[in-house]
Amino acid sequence: MRYEEFTIEGRNAVIEAYRAGRPIDRLFLLDGCQDGPVLTIRKEAKKKGTPIKFVTRERLDQMSETGRHQGVIAYAAAYEYAGVEEMLEAARQKGEPPFLFLLDNIEDPHNLGAIIRTAHLAGAHGVIIPKNRAVGLTASAAKASAGALNYIPVARVTNLSKTIEELKKEGIWFVCADMDGTRMYDLDLKGPIGLVIGSEGEGVGRLVREACDMTASIPMKGRINSLNASVAAGVLAYEIVRQRLNGADAPAAN
Amino acid sequence: MRYEEFTIEGRNAVIEAYRAGRPIDRLFLLDGCQDGPVLTIRKEAKKKGTPIKFVTRERLDQMSETGRHQGVIAYAAAYEYAGVEEMLEAARQKGEPPFLFLLDNIEDPHNLGAIIRTAHLAGAHGVIIPKNRAVGLTASAAKASAGALNYIPVARVTNLSKTIEELKKEGIWFVCADMDGTRMYDLDLKGPIGLVIGSEGEGVGRLVREACDMTASIPMKGRINSLNASVAAGVLAYEIVRQRLNGADAPAAN
Repeated sequence: MRYEEFTIEGRNAVIEAYRAGRPIDRLFLLDGCQDGPVLTIRKEAKKKGTPIKFVTRERLDQMSETGRHQGVIAYAAAYEYAGVEEMLEAARQKGEPPFLFLLDNIEDPHNLGAIIRTAHLAGAHGVIIPKNRAVGLTASAAKASAGALNYIPVARVTNLSKTIEELKKEGIWFVCADMDGTRMYDLDLKGPIGLVIGSEGEGVGRLVREACDMTASIPMKGRINSLNASVAAGVLAYEIVRQRLNGADAPAAN
Repeated sequence: MRYEEFTIEGRNAVIEAYRAGRPIDRLFLLDGCQDGPVLTIRKEAKKKGTPIKFVTRERLDQMSETGRHQGVIAYAAAYEYAGVEEMLEAARQKGEPPFLFLLDNIEDPHNLGAIIRTAHLAGAHGVIIPKNRAVGLTASAAKASAGALNYIPVARVTNLSKTIEELKKEGIWFVCADMDGTRMYDLDLKGPIGLVIGSEGEGVGRLVREACDMTASIPMKGRINSLNASVAAGVLAYEIVRQRLNGADAPAAN
Protein backbone atom coordinates (compact mmCIF):
# COMPACT_ATOMS: atom_id res chain seq x y z
CA MET A 1 0.00 0.00 0.00
CA ARG A 2 1.21 3.48 -0.80
CA TYR A 3 0.30 7.04 -0.09
CA GLU A 4 0.56 10.14 -2.22
CA GLU A 5 0.22 13.77 -1.22
CA PHE A 6 -2.85 15.37 -2.65
CA THR A 7 -4.88 18.48 -3.34
CA ILE A 8 -8.54 18.46 -4.31
CA GLU A 9 -9.57 21.30 -6.61
CA GLY A 10 -12.91 22.68 -7.72
CA ARG A 11 -16.25 23.01 -6.02
CA ASN A 12 -17.87 19.72 -6.92
CA ALA A 13 -14.73 17.73 -6.21
CA VAL A 14 -14.41 19.26 -2.72
CA ILE A 15 -18.12 18.87 -1.93
CA GLU A 16 -17.95 15.24 -3.06
CA ALA A 17 -14.92 14.66 -0.85
CA TYR A 18 -16.81 15.97 2.19
CA ARG A 19 -19.88 13.89 1.32
CA ALA A 20 -17.71 10.81 1.02
CA GLY A 21 -16.37 11.48 4.50
CA ARG A 22 -12.79 12.01 3.34
CA PRO A 23 -10.64 13.78 5.93
CA ILE A 24 -9.74 17.28 4.69
CA ASP A 25 -6.69 18.74 6.38
CA ARG A 26 -7.03 22.37 5.23
CA LEU A 27 -9.27 24.40 2.99
CA PHE A 28 -8.32 27.42 0.84
CA LEU A 29 -11.12 29.63 -0.45
CA LEU A 30 -11.07 32.67 -2.70
CA ASP A 31 -11.54 35.71 -0.48
CA GLY A 32 -14.98 37.30 -0.91
CA CYS A 33 -16.54 34.38 -2.77
CA GLN A 34 -20.04 33.78 -1.37
CA ASP A 35 -22.08 31.77 -3.86
CA GLY A 36 -24.13 28.65 -3.09
CA PRO A 37 -21.54 25.91 -3.62
CA VAL A 38 -18.92 27.86 -1.66
CA LEU A 39 -21.35 28.33 1.25
CA THR A 40 -22.09 24.59 1.16
CA ILE A 41 -18.35 23.92 1.39
CA ARG A 42 -17.98 26.36 4.31
CA LYS A 43 -20.84 24.64 6.14
CA GLU A 44 -19.24 21.23 5.63
CA ALA A 45 -15.88 22.58 6.74
CA LYS A 46 -17.41 23.99 9.92
CA LYS A 47 -19.17 20.71 10.62
CA LYS A 48 -15.93 18.76 10.21
CA GLY A 49 -13.73 21.34 11.90
CA THR A 50 -11.54 21.98 8.85
CA PRO A 51 -9.42 25.13 9.20
CA ILE A 52 -10.30 27.59 6.39
CA LYS A 53 -7.92 30.12 4.92
CA PHE A 54 -9.23 32.92 2.67
CA VAL A 55 -6.68 33.75 0.00
CA THR A 56 -6.25 35.74 -3.22
CA ARG A 57 -6.81 34.36 -6.70
CA GLU A 58 -3.07 34.64 -7.34
CA ARG A 59 -2.33 32.39 -4.39
CA LEU A 60 -4.87 29.80 -5.55
CA ASP A 61 -3.48 29.92 -9.07
CA GLN A 62 -0.03 29.19 -7.67
CA MET A 63 -1.28 26.28 -5.60
CA SER A 64 -3.41 24.79 -8.37
CA GLU A 65 -2.25 21.72 -10.25
CA THR A 66 -5.18 21.63 -12.63
CA GLY A 67 -5.49 25.35 -13.37
CA ARG A 68 -9.23 25.03 -12.70
CA HIS A 69 -9.69 25.47 -8.96
CA GLN A 70 -12.89 27.56 -9.21
CA GLY A 71 -11.86 29.40 -6.03
CA VAL A 72 -11.61 26.24 -3.92
CA ILE A 73 -8.63 24.06 -3.05
CA ALA A 74 -8.58 21.46 -0.29
CA TYR A 75 -5.55 19.68 1.13
CA ALA A 76 -6.77 16.18 1.68
CA ALA A 77 -5.39 13.32 3.60
CA ALA A 78 -3.70 11.39 0.83
CA TYR A 79 -5.53 9.00 -1.44
CA GLU A 80 -4.62 5.51 -0.57
CA TYR A 81 -3.80 2.86 -3.14
CA ALA A 82 -5.68 -0.30 -2.40
CA GLY A 83 -4.62 -3.91 -2.70
CA VAL A 84 -6.16 -6.18 -5.32
CA GLU A 85 -7.37 -8.52 -2.54
CA GLU A 86 -9.61 -5.74 -1.17
CA MET A 87 -11.41 -5.56 -4.49
CA LEU A 88 -12.15 -9.28 -4.51
CA GLU A 89 -13.32 -8.99 -0.92
CA ALA A 90 -15.67 -6.13 -1.87
CA ALA A 91 -17.19 -8.29 -4.61
CA ARG A 92 -17.61 -11.22 -2.18
CA GLN A 93 -19.31 -9.00 0.38
CA LYS A 94 -21.77 -7.72 -2.23
CA GLY A 95 -22.37 -11.25 -3.49
CA GLU A 96 -21.39 -10.17 -7.00
CA PRO A 97 -19.01 -11.79 -9.48
CA PRO A 98 -15.84 -9.65 -9.48
CA PHE A 99 -15.72 -6.89 -12.10
CA LEU A 100 -12.34 -5.19 -12.40
CA PHE A 101 -10.84 -2.60 -14.74
CA LEU A 102 -7.17 -2.97 -15.70
CA LEU A 103 -5.55 -0.03 -17.47
CA ASP A 104 -2.49 -0.76 -19.54
CA ASN A 105 -0.50 2.48 -19.43
CA ILE A 106 -3.13 5.18 -19.69
CA GLU A 107 -1.04 8.34 -19.90
CA ASP A 108 -3.62 11.11 -19.83
CA PRO A 109 -4.88 12.02 -16.34
CA HIS A 110 -8.27 13.10 -17.74
CA ASN A 111 -8.74 9.70 -19.32
CA LEU A 112 -7.63 7.99 -16.11
CA GLY A 113 -10.10 10.04 -14.07
CA ALA A 114 -12.94 9.52 -16.54
CA ILE A 115 -12.32 5.76 -16.54
CA ILE A 116 -12.30 5.60 -12.72
CA ARG A 117 -15.61 7.49 -12.80
CA THR A 118 -17.03 5.03 -15.34
CA ALA A 119 -15.75 2.02 -13.39
CA HIS A 120 -17.50 3.21 -10.24
CA LEU A 121 -20.80 3.97 -12.01
CA ALA A 122 -20.76 0.68 -13.92
CA GLY A 123 -20.50 -1.13 -10.60
CA ALA A 124 -16.91 -2.38 -10.89
CA HIS A 125 -15.10 -3.36 -7.70
CA GLY A 126 -11.75 -1.78 -8.48
CA VAL A 127 -9.29 -0.32 -10.97
CA ILE A 128 -5.78 -1.73 -11.40
CA ILE A 129 -3.04 0.38 -12.97
CA PRO A 130 0.64 -0.40 -13.56
CA LYS A 131 3.37 1.38 -11.60
CA ASN A 132 5.58 2.34 -14.50
CA ARG A 133 4.96 4.74 -17.35
CA ALA A 134 1.26 5.13 -16.62
CA VAL A 135 -0.12 8.25 -14.94
CA GLY A 136 -1.05 7.88 -11.25
CA LEU A 137 -3.66 9.51 -9.06
CA THR A 138 -2.73 13.14 -9.70
CA ALA A 139 -4.99 16.06 -8.86
CA SER A 140 -6.08 16.22 -12.51
CA ALA A 141 -7.07 12.56 -12.46
CA ALA A 142 -8.93 13.02 -9.17
CA LYS A 143 -10.82 16.03 -10.57
CA ALA A 144 -11.73 14.15 -13.75
CA SER A 145 -13.01 11.27 -11.61
CA ALA A 146 -15.65 13.69 -10.24
CA GLY A 147 -15.49 12.19 -6.78
CA ALA A 148 -15.46 8.53 -7.83
CA LEU A 149 -11.95 8.11 -6.41
CA ASN A 150 -13.54 8.36 -2.98
CA TYR A 151 -15.63 5.27 -3.57
CA ILE A 152 -13.71 2.82 -5.74
CA PRO A 153 -10.35 1.29 -4.81
CA VAL A 154 -7.40 1.81 -7.17
CA ALA A 155 -4.42 -0.55 -6.97
CA ARG A 156 -0.98 -0.15 -8.51
CA VAL A 157 0.87 -3.29 -9.55
CA THR A 158 4.38 -3.87 -10.86
CA ASN A 159 3.46 -6.21 -13.67
CA LEU A 160 0.00 -6.20 -15.18
CA SER A 161 0.28 -9.51 -17.06
CA LYS A 162 1.51 -11.26 -13.89
CA THR A 163 -1.45 -9.83 -11.96
CA ILE A 164 -3.76 -11.16 -14.67
CA GLU A 165 -2.23 -14.63 -14.38
CA GLU A 166 -2.71 -14.58 -10.61
CA LEU A 167 -6.31 -13.40 -10.86
CA LYS A 168 -7.11 -16.12 -13.39
CA LYS A 169 -6.51 -18.59 -10.57
CA GLU A 170 -9.37 -16.89 -8.74
CA GLY A 171 -11.65 -17.73 -11.63
CA ILE A 172 -11.65 -14.30 -13.28
CA TRP A 173 -11.77 -14.11 -17.07
CA PHE A 174 -9.97 -11.31 -18.85
CA VAL A 175 -11.16 -9.48 -21.91
CA CYS A 176 -9.08 -6.86 -23.67
CA ALA A 177 -10.18 -4.30 -26.17
CA ASP A 178 -8.74 -4.57 -29.65
CA MET A 179 -9.93 -3.77 -33.17
CA ASP A 180 -9.19 -7.31 -34.34
CA GLY A 181 -11.25 -8.99 -31.65
CA THR A 182 -14.64 -10.65 -31.60
CA ARG A 183 -17.57 -8.27 -31.72
CA MET A 184 -18.34 -7.53 -28.08
CA TYR A 185 -22.01 -8.48 -28.44
CA ASP A 186 -20.96 -12.01 -29.41
CA LEU A 187 -18.87 -12.67 -26.29
CA ASP A 188 -20.18 -13.94 -22.97
CA LEU A 189 -19.11 -11.22 -20.53
CA LYS A 190 -21.37 -12.11 -17.62
CA GLY A 191 -19.12 -13.97 -15.18
CA PRO A 192 -16.22 -12.75 -13.02
CA ILE A 193 -14.42 -10.43 -15.39
CA GLY A 194 -11.44 -8.14 -15.80
CA LEU A 195 -11.76 -5.51 -18.55
CA VAL A 196 -8.36 -4.51 -19.93
CA ILE A 197 -8.06 -1.11 -21.63
CA GLY A 198 -4.96 -0.15 -23.60
CA SER A 199 -3.09 3.12 -23.74
CA GLU A 200 -4.25 5.99 -25.93
CA GLY A 201 -1.63 5.56 -28.63
CA GLU A 202 -0.62 1.92 -28.62
CA GLY A 203 -3.57 -0.06 -27.34
CA VAL A 204 -3.01 -3.09 -25.13
CA GLY A 205 0.61 -4.30 -24.96
CA ARG A 206 1.51 -7.70 -26.43
CA LEU A 207 2.25 -9.51 -23.16
CA VAL A 208 -0.94 -8.25 -21.55
CA ARG A 209 -3.00 -9.12 -24.61
CA GLU A 210 -1.58 -12.64 -24.66
CA ALA A 211 -2.49 -13.06 -21.00
CA CYS A 212 -6.16 -12.26 -21.75
CA ASP A 213 -8.78 -14.93 -22.45
CA MET A 214 -10.82 -12.93 -24.95
CA THR A 215 -10.41 -9.97 -27.26
CA ALA A 216 -13.45 -7.77 -27.73
CA SER A 217 -13.96 -5.28 -30.51
CA ILE A 218 -16.38 -2.38 -30.64
CA PRO A 219 -18.09 -2.24 -34.04
CA MET A 220 -16.83 0.85 -35.86
CA LYS A 221 -17.99 2.37 -39.08
CA GLY A 222 -15.75 5.35 -39.55
CA ARG A 223 -12.58 6.06 -41.43
CA ILE A 224 -10.39 6.56 -38.35
CA ASN A 225 -9.10 3.82 -36.09
CA SER A 226 -10.26 4.11 -32.56
CA LEU A 227 -12.39 5.74 -29.94
CA ASN A 228 -10.95 7.86 -27.16
CA ALA A 229 -9.65 5.47 -24.47
CA SER A 230 -12.16 6.56 -21.84
CA VAL A 231 -15.06 6.35 -24.31
CA ALA A 232 -13.98 2.84 -25.39
CA ALA A 233 -13.76 1.81 -21.73
CA GLY A 234 -17.28 3.14 -21.16
CA VAL A 235 -18.77 1.39 -24.18
CA LEU A 236 -17.20 -1.96 -23.23
CA ALA A 237 -18.05 -1.58 -19.55
CA TYR A 238 -21.68 -0.98 -20.39
CA GLU A 239 -21.81 -4.01 -22.66
CA ILE A 240 -20.71 -5.97 -19.57
CA VAL A 241 -23.38 -4.19 -17.49
CA ARG A 242 -26.04 -5.00 -20.08
CA GLN A 243 -25.12 -8.66 -20.20
CA ARG A 244 -25.06 -8.86 -16.41
CA LEU A 245 -28.50 -7.24 -16.16
CA ASN A 246 -29.70 -9.83 -18.66
CA GLY A 247 -28.79 -12.43 -16.09
CA ALA A 248 -27.92 -15.99 -16.97
CA ASP A 249 -29.02 -15.93 -20.63
CA ALA A 250 -26.73 -16.49 -23.53
CA PRO A 251 -25.40 -13.25 -25.09
CA ALA A 252 -28.56 -11.48 -26.12
CA ALA A 253 -27.59 -9.53 -29.19
CA ASN A 254 -26.05 -10.37 -32.49
CA MET B 1 -22.52 28.03 -43.69
CA ARG B 2 -19.55 29.49 -41.87
CA TYR B 3 -15.80 29.31 -41.88
CA GLU B 4 -13.33 29.48 -39.04
CA GLU B 5 -9.57 29.90 -39.17
CA PHE B 6 -7.74 26.84 -38.07
CA THR B 7 -4.50 25.12 -37.10
CA ILE B 8 -4.06 21.35 -36.98
CA GLU B 9 -1.55 20.16 -34.39
CA GLY B 10 0.15 16.84 -33.77
CA ARG B 11 1.39 14.11 -36.07
CA ASN B 12 -1.66 11.91 -36.32
CA ALA B 13 -4.00 14.85 -36.75
CA VAL B 14 -1.93 16.25 -39.64
CA ILE B 15 -1.50 12.83 -41.30
CA GLU B 16 -5.25 12.24 -41.00
CA ALA B 17 -5.94 15.65 -42.54
CA TYR B 18 -3.77 14.79 -45.56
CA ARG B 19 -5.37 11.36 -45.92
CA ALA B 20 -8.79 12.94 -45.83
CA GLY B 21 -7.75 15.22 -48.69
CA ARG B 22 -8.08 18.43 -46.66
CA PRO B 23 -6.28 21.37 -48.24
CA ILE B 24 -3.31 22.36 -46.05
CA ASP B 25 -2.12 25.93 -46.63
CA ARG B 26 1.21 25.78 -44.81
CA LEU B 27 3.17 23.31 -42.72
CA PHE B 28 5.50 24.06 -39.79
CA LEU B 29 7.90 21.32 -38.72
CA LEU B 30 10.40 21.17 -35.88
CA ASP B 31 13.85 21.69 -37.41
CA GLY B 32 15.90 18.50 -37.44
CA CYS B 33 13.03 16.16 -36.68
CA GLN B 34 13.34 13.09 -38.93
CA ASP B 35 11.30 10.22 -37.50
CA GLY B 36 8.81 8.07 -39.40
CA PRO B 37 5.59 10.04 -38.91
CA VAL B 38 7.37 13.32 -39.74
CA LEU B 39 8.79 11.82 -42.95
CA THR B 40 5.30 10.60 -43.86
CA ILE B 41 4.02 14.15 -43.38
CA ARG B 42 6.85 15.58 -45.52
CA LYS B 43 6.04 13.10 -48.28
CA GLU B 44 2.36 14.06 -48.20
CA ALA B 45 3.28 17.74 -48.17
CA LYS B 46 5.51 17.28 -51.24
CA LYS B 47 2.77 15.37 -53.06
CA LYS B 48 0.24 18.10 -52.36
CA GLY B 49 2.64 21.00 -52.88
CA THR B 50 2.30 22.37 -49.35
CA PRO B 51 5.05 24.88 -48.48
CA ILE B 52 7.05 23.62 -45.47
CA LYS B 53 8.80 25.85 -42.98
CA PHE B 54 11.32 24.38 -40.51
CA VAL B 55 11.17 26.21 -37.20
CA THR B 56 12.41 26.05 -33.61
CA ARG B 57 10.55 24.43 -30.74
CA GLU B 58 10.01 27.90 -29.24
CA ARG B 59 8.26 29.07 -32.37
CA LEU B 60 5.99 25.99 -32.43
CA ASP B 61 5.20 26.44 -28.74
CA GLN B 62 4.15 30.02 -29.46
CA MET B 63 1.95 29.00 -32.35
CA SER B 64 0.38 26.04 -30.55
CA GLU B 65 -3.15 26.30 -29.20
CA THR B 66 -3.16 22.87 -27.62
CA GLY B 67 0.37 22.83 -26.17
CA ARG B 68 0.84 19.39 -27.71
CA HIS B 69 2.04 19.97 -31.25
CA GLN B 70 4.60 17.11 -31.27
CA GLY B 71 6.77 19.14 -33.64
CA VAL B 72 4.07 19.51 -36.29
CA ILE B 73 1.59 22.31 -36.94
CA ALA B 74 -0.40 22.74 -40.14
CA TYR B 75 -2.40 25.77 -41.20
CA ALA B 76 -5.44 24.28 -42.79
CA ALA B 77 -8.03 25.74 -45.01
CA ALA B 78 -10.74 26.37 -42.48
CA TYR B 79 -13.11 23.68 -41.31
CA GLU B 80 -16.47 24.26 -42.79
CA TYR B 81 -19.66 24.06 -40.79
CA ALA B 82 -22.20 22.00 -42.61
CA GLY B 83 -25.93 22.46 -42.95
CA VAL B 84 -28.34 20.05 -41.31
CA GLU B 85 -29.81 19.20 -44.72
CA GLU B 86 -26.45 17.76 -45.84
CA MET B 87 -26.61 15.27 -42.99
CA LEU B 88 -30.05 14.05 -43.99
CA GLU B 89 -28.84 13.81 -47.58
CA ALA B 90 -25.84 11.71 -46.48
CA ALA B 91 -28.20 9.32 -44.68
CA ARG B 92 -30.44 9.10 -47.75
CA GLN B 93 -27.48 8.35 -50.02
CA LYS B 94 -26.33 5.54 -47.75
CA GLY B 95 -29.87 4.20 -47.47
CA GLU B 96 -29.71 4.45 -43.68
CA PRO B 97 -32.20 5.95 -41.23
CA PRO B 98 -30.71 9.30 -40.09
CA PHE B 99 -28.58 9.15 -36.93
CA LEU B 100 -27.63 12.57 -35.57
CA PHE B 101 -25.88 13.81 -32.44
CA LEU B 102 -27.10 17.07 -30.87
CA LEU B 103 -24.91 18.60 -28.18
CA ASP B 104 -26.60 20.96 -25.78
CA ASN B 105 -23.81 23.34 -24.72
CA ILE B 106 -20.78 21.11 -24.37
CA GLU B 107 -18.15 23.52 -23.01
CA ASP B 108 -15.01 21.42 -22.95
CA PRO B 109 -13.21 21.16 -26.31
CA HIS B 110 -11.82 17.71 -25.40
CA ASN B 111 -15.32 16.42 -24.79
CA LEU B 112 -16.54 18.00 -28.03
CA GLY B 113 -13.69 16.39 -29.98
CA ALA B 114 -14.17 13.00 -28.32
CA ILE B 115 -17.90 13.08 -29.07
CA ILE B 116 -17.31 13.99 -32.74
CA ARG B 117 -14.89 11.04 -32.88
CA THR B 118 -17.50 8.74 -31.32
CA ALA B 119 -20.25 10.03 -33.63
CA HIS B 120 -18.16 9.24 -36.69
CA LEU B 121 -17.18 5.76 -35.50
CA ALA B 122 -20.73 4.90 -34.45
CA GLY B 123 -21.87 5.67 -37.97
CA ALA B 124 -23.77 8.90 -37.26
CA HIS B 125 -24.43 11.27 -40.16
CA GLY B 126 -23.68 14.52 -38.39
CA VAL B 127 -23.22 16.50 -35.19
CA ILE B 128 -25.30 19.59 -34.40
CA ILE B 129 -24.09 22.15 -31.86
CA PRO B 130 -25.64 25.44 -30.74
CA LYS B 131 -24.04 28.77 -31.66
CA ASN B 132 -24.10 30.36 -28.23
CA ARG B 133 -22.23 29.39 -25.09
CA ALA B 134 -21.01 26.05 -26.42
CA VAL B 135 -17.44 25.54 -27.58
CA GLY B 136 -16.89 25.49 -31.35
CA LEU B 137 -14.42 23.70 -33.58
CA THR B 138 -11.22 24.92 -31.93
CA ALA B 139 -7.81 23.33 -32.50
CA SER B 140 -8.19 21.45 -29.21
CA ALA B 141 -11.52 20.03 -30.32
CA ALA B 142 -10.09 19.07 -33.70
CA LYS B 143 -7.12 17.32 -32.07
CA ALA B 144 -9.38 15.44 -29.66
CA SER B 145 -11.50 14.33 -32.61
CA ALA B 146 -8.42 12.45 -33.90
CA GLY B 147 -9.22 13.22 -37.50
CA ALA B 148 -12.95 12.50 -37.34
CA LEU B 149 -13.73 16.16 -38.08
CA ASN B 150 -12.53 15.47 -41.62
CA TYR B 151 -15.23 12.89 -42.19
CA ILE B 152 -18.35 13.91 -40.32
CA PRO B 153 -20.28 17.15 -40.88
CA VAL B 154 -20.77 19.51 -37.93
CA ALA B 155 -23.56 22.10 -38.07
CA ARG B 156 -24.11 25.12 -35.83
CA VAL B 157 -27.66 26.21 -35.19
CA THR B 158 -29.12 29.21 -33.38
CA ASN B 159 -31.77 27.34 -31.43
CA LEU B 160 -31.43 23.65 -30.69
CA SER B 161 -35.03 23.03 -29.64
CA LYS B 162 -36.29 24.73 -32.79
CA THR B 163 -34.00 22.53 -34.89
CA ILE B 164 -35.39 19.50 -33.09
CA GLU B 165 -38.96 20.57 -33.86
CA GLU B 166 -38.08 21.00 -37.54
CA LEU B 167 -36.34 17.63 -37.76
CA LYS B 168 -39.30 15.90 -36.14
CA LYS B 169 -41.24 16.83 -39.28
CA GLU B 170 -38.70 14.72 -41.19
CA GLY B 171 -39.68 11.72 -39.10
CA ILE B 172 -36.71 11.79 -36.73
CA TRP B 173 -37.25 10.80 -33.10
CA PHE B 174 -35.24 12.50 -30.39
CA VAL B 175 -33.85 10.87 -27.29
CA CYS B 176 -32.08 12.82 -24.60
CA ALA B 177 -29.89 11.50 -21.83
CA ASP B 178 -31.11 12.06 -18.30
CA MET B 179 -30.84 10.20 -15.01
CA ASP B 180 -34.61 10.14 -14.59
CA GLY B 181 -35.33 8.57 -17.95
CA THR B 182 -36.28 5.08 -19.06
CA ARG B 183 -33.46 2.54 -18.96
CA MET B 184 -31.87 2.78 -22.42
CA TYR B 185 -32.19 -0.97 -23.03
CA ASP B 186 -35.98 -0.66 -22.72
CA LEU B 187 -36.38 2.00 -25.43
CA ASP B 188 -36.69 1.35 -29.14
CA LEU B 189 -33.79 3.32 -30.60
CA LYS B 190 -33.64 1.73 -34.05
CA GLY B 191 -35.37 4.21 -36.37
CA PRO B 192 -34.33 7.69 -37.55
CA ILE B 193 -32.87 9.17 -34.37
CA GLY B 194 -31.29 12.25 -32.84
CA LEU B 195 -29.26 11.63 -29.68
CA VAL B 196 -29.20 14.72 -27.45
CA ILE B 197 -26.31 15.06 -24.98
CA GLY B 198 -26.35 17.71 -22.25
CA SER B 199 -23.58 19.94 -20.99
CA GLU B 200 -21.03 18.69 -18.45
CA GLY B 201 -22.48 20.52 -15.49
CA GLU B 202 -26.16 20.98 -16.15
CA GLY B 203 -27.26 18.19 -18.43
CA VAL B 204 -29.85 18.83 -21.10
CA GLY B 205 -31.63 22.19 -20.83
CA ARG B 206 -35.37 22.25 -20.04
CA LEU B 207 -36.60 23.49 -23.43
CA VAL B 208 -34.48 20.99 -25.30
CA ARG B 209 -35.56 18.16 -22.99
CA GLU B 210 -39.20 19.03 -23.50
CA ALA B 211 -38.71 18.95 -27.26
CA CYS B 212 -37.44 15.36 -27.09
CA ASP B 213 -39.65 12.30 -27.59
CA MET B 214 -37.85 10.02 -25.15
CA THR B 215 -35.54 10.28 -22.19
CA ALA B 216 -32.95 7.54 -21.82
CA SER B 217 -31.00 6.72 -18.70
CA ILE B 218 -27.80 4.76 -18.38
CA PRO B 219 -28.02 2.33 -15.45
CA MET B 220 -25.65 3.55 -12.74
CA LYS B 221 -24.61 1.88 -9.56
CA GLY B 222 -22.25 4.35 -7.97
CA ARG B 223 -22.54 7.08 -5.41
CA ILE B 224 -21.84 9.95 -7.77
CA ASN B 225 -24.25 11.37 -10.31
CA SER B 226 -23.07 11.11 -13.83
CA LEU B 227 -20.58 9.87 -16.36
CA ASN B 228 -18.24 12.18 -18.21
CA ALA B 229 -20.24 13.76 -21.07
CA SER B 230 -18.21 12.10 -23.82
CA VAL B 231 -18.38 8.70 -22.09
CA ALA B 232 -22.16 9.01 -21.67
CA ALA B 233 -22.47 9.95 -25.35
CA GLY B 234 -20.42 6.86 -26.27
CA VAL B 235 -22.45 4.49 -24.12
CA LEU B 236 -25.76 5.77 -25.48
CA ALA B 237 -24.51 5.87 -29.07
CA TYR B 238 -23.44 2.25 -28.85
CA GLU B 239 -26.78 1.18 -27.43
CA ILE B 240 -28.25 2.71 -30.61
CA VAL B 241 -25.63 0.88 -32.70
CA ARG B 242 -26.44 -2.42 -30.95
CA GLN B 243 -30.15 -2.06 -31.53
CA ARG B 244 -29.61 -1.12 -35.17
CA LEU B 245 -27.37 -4.16 -35.70
CA ASN B 246 -30.15 -6.26 -34.19
CA GLY B 247 -32.35 -5.12 -37.04
CA ALA B 248 -36.08 -5.01 -36.81
CA ASP B 249 -36.51 -6.95 -33.55
CA ALA B 250 -38.01 -5.50 -30.43
CA PRO B 251 -35.49 -4.08 -27.93
CA ALA B 252 -33.39 -7.13 -27.14
CA ALA B 253 -32.33 -6.62 -23.58
CA ASN B 254 -34.11 -6.08 -20.33
